[in-house]
Amino acid sequence: VSAKQVIGVDLGGTKILAGSIDVDGRVLERHEVPTPTSSQEELLEGIVAAIEPLAGTGIGALGLGIPSVLDRSTGRALGSINIPLTDFALNDLLAERFGVPVAVENDANVAALAEWKLGAGRGADNLVLLTLGTGVGGGVVFDGALYRGWAELGHVVVVADGPPCQGTCTGRGHLEAVASGNAADRAAEKLWGEGATAELLVGRAEEGDPTALEALAGIGHLLGAAIGSFINVFSPELTVIGGGFGIAASEFLFPEAHEVAYREALEPARAGIRIVKAELGSDAGLIGAGLLAFEAIAQER
Amino acid sequence: VSAKQVIGVDLGGTKILAGSIDVDGRVLERHEVPTPTSSQEELLEGIVAAIEPLAGTGIGALGLGIPSVLDRSTGRALGSINIPLTDFALNDLLAERFGVPVAVENDANVAALAEWKLGAGRGADNLVLLTLGTGVGGGVVFDGALYRGWAELGHVVVVADGPPCQGTCTGRGHLEAVASGNAADRAAEKLWGEGATAELLVGRAEEGDPTALEALAGIGHLLGAAIGSFINVFSPELTVIGGGFGIAASEFLFPEAHEVAYREALEPARAGIRIVKAELGSDAGLIGAGLLAFEAIAQER
Repeated sequence: VSAKQVIGVDLGGTKILAGSIDVDGRVLERHEVPTPTSSQEELLEGIVAAIEPLAGTGIGALGLGIPSVLDRSTGRALGSINIPLTDFALNDLLAERFGVPVAVENDANVAALAEWKLGAGRGADNLVLLTLGTGVGGGVVFDGALYRGWAELGHVVVVADGPPCQGTCTGRGHLEAVASGNAADRAAEKLWGEGATAELLVGRAEEGDPTALEALAGIGHLLGAAIGSFINVFSPELTVIGGGFGIAASEFLFPEAHEVAYREALEPARAGIRIVKAELGSDAGLIGAGLLAFEAIAQER
Repeated sequence: VSAKQVIGVDLGGTKILAGSIDVDGRVLERHEVPTPTSSQEELLEGIVAAIEPLAGTGIGALGLGIPSVLDRSTGRALGSINIPLTDFALNDLLAERFGVPVAVENDANVAALAEWKLGAGRGADNLVLLTLGTGVGGGVVFDGALYRGWAELGHVVVVADGPPCQGTCTGRGHLEAVASGNAADRAAEKLWGEGATAELLVGRAEEGDPTALEALAGIGHLLGAAIGSFINVFSPELTVIGGGFGIAASEFLFPEAHEVAYREALEPARAGIRIVKAELGSDAGLIGAGLLAFEAIAQER
């Protein structure tokens, strides 16, 4: 068992990505398998299958970022919108299986940890991270520590009684429903018919298409309203935007988002609003999970 | 100098309320003066004038709840929406004046501390407090500790591009603009013309007036949307509603608020949503400030 490297796992809705991570947060080796979504047992076996090829040199510890809210006292997964995780002690089951310390945290919290330690938030004591992918995830660093609450920032109401969420969330007008890749898909379909996607929307915006630019500015507008809200709650030094859609569309979302966040934010934070792109891309979850695993080793000592 | 009692100060927009508080959070004696709003110097003298008649038996420490965001590293008041507090080191100035430890905290955070220790939130490790008065204040207890961030929960966007805030806040559709006593005043004026108030609205609702009941249910609807958002961010065990308007209108606001919060909240929290009235009434700020003062003594040791 080596404490020089650990295994991080990024459990996504479609794939499980595992990687060997060194103490500097570098990904040394990776292995990816599809996410089994038929049952919790299958899901556990999928995670084991993603990890095993990397276990040859010894597993110092395991860290997992999972798309679920957690019971902070036990580490149990309590419920996920897209995959079978309902009151599931993934942490205990994996600790038993591999005989090493296991840390489990919400995937967006884990991404926030990575961006804070090694990405766009280096040196900050307070930041908010929003990942705009299929859905919207959120993480918060507060007073120099990862906030370990739910921080389901994608599920705050921005437009009361607005468009519905997907999956098991019954909410209306949540940030996820108005500023995710899915929301951009719907905006594209509204403009160009069924099958049009967020990718097309961003592509057209890059070509200067005014309707595409307007649609993305509209999404940026609502994103900015949420960023303003989070500033008033957490007073972060900066807001980091990640996720596939968030990164791809950033140049079209950020100017309007900045303007609205400025309008919504209280003095004196509004003067210094910073909205920046995440730097670690799709590796943020993996790297954050690795950092978490190193923390788990430190705590065992 | 006695550590058996301290002085708590609740600095409001219209009055400054000071009280001698014992270790059990009982208010032994109180003194109230109007809030001078002409300048920061006058404001400081007003606070001193509120405290001095209580200083006879010795001041163990001073705690203040103030309507301002704070710089957490220095305790400076950074900016208030209604009274002159802009980059003002109230804590240092009062420590110099009285020669005792001084703790300063946002007024709604202080009220949350009081309700948690001695009021409706006794025994909880996680709670959200919303005070619906003229404006809307917010405080959070997280993992058994008062969250010391801004927690300006009244200034989250609930209705994007909705009604404007008052005072120095330029935001639109904030919780404060749609679910405060002020918002209820406006709803009353819309129904019965200029000069109609939140008080009249609640009075008519008590008489069974259907238009008044509908207007209050509408406010409860948007309050519930915000409560759902806060559940998804903080996963509190309960949400405590205080403030003059919040307490007076609770029976008309809570049923609709509960229904909408249930719709917005993620599993598994939604099943156990609790929305309850604050118990300490208008003393919450004073008592919380006293508790803070005792904490300041403990930290000096």
